[in-house]
Amino acid sequence: MKQVHNFNAGPCILPRVAIENTAQALLDLNGSGLSLIEISHRSKDFEAINNECIALWKELLGIPEGYHVLFLGGGASLQFCMLAYNLLSTKAAYVESGVWAKKAAKEAKLFGEVKVIASSSDKNFSYYPAIGDIPQDVDYLHITTNNTIYGTELRRDIDSPVPLVADMSSDIMSRPVDVSKYAMIYGGAQKNVGPAGVAFVIVKEALLGKVQRQIPTMLDYRTHIAEKSLFNTPPVFAIYAMRETLRWIKAQGGLQAMAELNQKKADLLYSYLDNESKMFVGTADKASRSLMNICFVMTEQHKGKEEEFMNVAKAAGMVGIKGHRSVGGFRASTYNALPLSSVQALVDCMRKFEQ
Amino acid sequence: MKQVHNFNAGPCILPRVAIENTAQALLDLNGSGLSLIEISHRSKDFEAINNECIALWKELLGIPEGYHVLFLGGGASLQFCMLAYNLLSTKAAYVESGVWAKKAAKEAKLFGEVKVIASSSDKNFSYYPAIGDIPQDVDYLHITTNNTIYGTELRRDIDSPVPLVADMSSDIMSRPVDVSKYAMIYGGAQKNVGPAGVAFVIVKEALLGKVQRQIPTMLDYRTHIAEKSLFNTPPVFAIYAMRETLRWIKAQGGLQAMAELNQKKADLLYSYLDNESKMFVGTADKASRSLMNICFVMTEQHKGKEEEFMNVAKAAGMVGIKGHRSVGGFRASTYNALPLSSVQALVDCMRKFEQ
Repeated sequence: MKQVHNFNAGPCILPRVAIENTAQALLDLNGSGLSLIEISHRSKDFEAINNECIALWKELLGIPEGYHVLFLGGGASLQFCMLAYNLLSTKAAYVESGVWAKKAAKEAKLFGEVKVIASSSDKNFSYYPAIGDIPQDVDYLHITTNNTIYGTELRRDIDSPVPLVADMSSDIMSRPVDVSKYAMIYGGAQKNVGPAGVAFVIVKEALLGKVQRQIPTMLDYRTHIAEKSLFNTPPVFAIYAMRETLRWIKAQGGLQAMAELNQKKADLLYSYLDNESKMFVGTADKASRSLMNICFVMTEQHKGKEEEFMNVAKAAGMVGIKGHRSVGGFRASTYNALPLSSVQALVDCMRKFEQ
Repeated sequence: MKQVHNFNAGPCILPRVAIENTAQALLDLNGSGLSLIEISHRSKDFEAINNECIALWKELLGIPEGYHVLFLGGGASLQFCMLAYNLLSTKAAYVESGVWAKKAAKEAKLFGEVKVIASSSDKNFSYYPAIGDIPQDVDYLHITTNNTIYGTELRRDIDSPVPLVADMSSDIMSRPVDVSKYAMIYGGAQKNVGPAGVAFVIVKEALLGKVQRQIPTMLDYRTHIAEKSLFNTPPVFAIYAMRETLRWIKAQGGLQAMAELNQKKADLLYSYLDNESKMFVGTADKASRSLMNICFVMTEQHKGKEEEFMNVAKAAGMVGIKGHRSVGGFRASTYNALPLSSVQALVDCMRKFEQ
């Protein structure tokens, strides 16, 4: 098999063992003679998979009592309207830290008043906006903890006087999180916890049932809580692959181990950018730097060599390092499953090109 | 690998070649060194997969100009509210042919008036209700073409003076369909066309944009039409496996070949029930019988032997033949990928037990 270094921004690299185990189950689940995708979602086999996956979420994140873990279709984008449907009675506060945060706020406007209490749109979202005073009269505060496009991340659990709702699509399970500080955490699985096709929702039950509007059955979190996400046919494959990914995280030592590995990887690349390179420079504000997505461009005097570097990097097996069009340059996504050796290979490649 | 006969009602049997090709792509997509679930949904590789899958839908069903094919998360159940969001201005007509049809109608009530114009609830949905006069003053007529639980099926394309919307979750691609008679056809993929985790929507563009309400972005069909279902990260794996399943259908000779095979399988089992068996009897009205789900129970004088038969059948490799709790007895689902030899094995097993 061709050896590559997978820096894709998502869907992205996943643990090889998770992929291999899932491929095996796809061919023959537990010696049953059936593929994973040929079994009933009401079968004991799938019930065990679903339950273990929920238990791993609770164990790895230390989710307290009173919260539920849901696995839903439609991605985080569907949650933008679904959370507002369920939680927004009159007013909500949003932190505008990137385009996905803006999209979340846009959907909420259909259900009530939206106050943008902090924004970094003035500098193309190159920093994480300071969250000052949080208004007390809102139903919730919504934040996006990591901004994939711009390489910024909050990376701490803030205190909020109102229920805190966080889109953690791109940094969930990359560090320990104090879940008790949040009313709801959600995201698409396709970065650190699995393949595309399933969204995770961690929601405090006490938060629900307060809005007056009628909620369509499939958009009501209480439907999925009551049925353990099995109200209708769930994305069976994605939940299986997620379970395998979480098993791998646990085997590595859990979220503390993930945080240490992610810090090492980021330090390696940021340190090269800050202390050595004359050709590449990071784009995100240093205090806001993401450990998941490391964005960099060529310095003024080297502009124009981007394509040449891209060709050299590709030849060296680098995949997915083109920056998002709204930032330009390059982006190395360094999610949980990316080994340190891949970051080292990228730095070596950059150093060699520079010389 | 253990040899079984997979009669699961869904998720269900899929073509072995589709599973094997998907498992291979899961390990290494096109020799790229990346798993299918590790690539960007914006990559050329995935674009080609998505486009081919759309093209196969259009080719196999002969979808006319003016229709779009969408692949969405959340299952058919999410479509129950989504279609009403998009299409229901004041009033809609529903045919109540089973619990899924009832669920679809229930969601529509949040958006307008629902007229149930035909129902078979008086006899536990054991027949397909006659669709008489269709009111002219409704925005659309909704039907469920196959009722998995009760083993009934419409199996023809009716003429409707108002836009016809059909949930074809469990008989899509089992026979040629005159798509031009429908305004919208939708369903979960997890029967004849792929794994759980993706819903298909075939929708006539001229039907959209007529309701006055604001529609959340992810629930607006126009969002997904504009972005070829790539507005947000799609269920990549499920779309790949669907493409492989459709390739198999095409290689078998398309929907005409599927219809002939499905007829043969159903004839074999129904004919045994009608003409030979003294122990088993079909539950669905003969004129309404499904070619996808064949429901039967034990006759009065043999009641009580269900468990014994179930054990014998299991030992003979039969999987998934327990009937739904609301009908009881047995159900053999005979979707596209089930070979005739599996139905023969079931009939042999029933005959042997009876003797």
